[in-house]
Amino acid sequence: MEEVILNPIGIINTPYKDQKNIPIQGCFDNSPEGVCNVLDKYSEGLSDLQDFSHAILIYHFHKTKEEKIKARPYLEPVEHGVFAIRSPYRPNKIGFSIVKINKIIGNKLFFSEVDMLDGTPLLDIKPFVKHFDNRENVKCGWIDKHFENGNIPEQTILH
Amino acid sequence: MEEVILNPIGIINTPYKDQKNIPIQGCFDNSPEGVCNVLDKYSEGLSDLQDFSHAILIYHFHKTKEEKIKARPYLEPVEHGVFAIRSPYRPNKIGFSIVKINKIIGNKLFFSEVDMLDGTPLLDIKPFVKHFDNRENVKCGWIDKHFENGNIPEQTILH
Repeated sequence: MEEVILNPIGIINTPYKDQKNIPIQGCFDNSPEGVCNVLDKYSEGLSDLQDFSHAILIYHFHKTKEEKIKARPYLEPVEHGVFAIRSPYRPNKIGFSIVKINKIIGNKLFFSEVDMLDGTPLLDIKPFVKHFDNRENVKCGWIDKHFENGNIPEQTILH
Repeated sequence: MEEVILNPIGIINTPYKDQKNIPIQGCFDNSPEGVCNVLDKYSEGLSDLQDFSHAILIYHFHKTKEEKIKARPYLEPVEHGVFAIRSPYRPNKIGFSIVKINKIIGNKLFFSEVDMLDGTPLLDIKPFVKHFDNRENVKCGWIDKHFENGNIPEQTILH
């Protein structure tokens, strides 16, 4: 199979210089703000995105070198297959986050629900579409027990 | 910025040899079944994914060569920025689909809600986690009017 070569469309700047205080998913801490700095040549690609409340960011876990086929997720000390967890130690280091759009000015998309490191190479932005992307009757394997009865687990912010 | 080089983790087989009859999003036709054929070396990475109802597939739009910064989406004849639509004519040809897991046998993940072409290179599989990925109070710009009052638009299957 041929390799797939991608060129970043921009850089994500966030308050997180390292893993300290970073939430495991953006929805667990919506106070910090991040910025997608899109290359000028793609600036026009942001047109009309300001009318959406949320965007999907796809990016490169550029600081992660290791690959683990089974690994322990942040939420529990039990190993699971890498495709059943959201760990960055994946065969392809692709990150995926749903973020809240705050505003778009020129080539800059300001967002909250930040869960990526400062300097992350941005690969794509897609509009989050509730008609396509929200799902009902969802079963989440080893994860559901951590959220039972409205519980929010303690390990949602890294130390 | 450095280019990002990815190696497919497997191939997706689907009933769609070309665009004919393919839904614009998998949720609009859940009858056909697709299969992710994961490389043997990553087979163990699927462990525990069978306890999830849905997965996120990230893949390469390998048949798409063109890039359009503004384009007309399938749902309407009006141009929007590429980052405000889900078209494959993107700067990086990355596809993203949420699919329903039917079963997993060895290195094969059988799924419904299929919206990709047969032979699509698979880049990543992530568990869909309702606690992370479902969003409330979502506003979807130019798309919402097509789904007003429970309407399902006519252009959800390609011809």
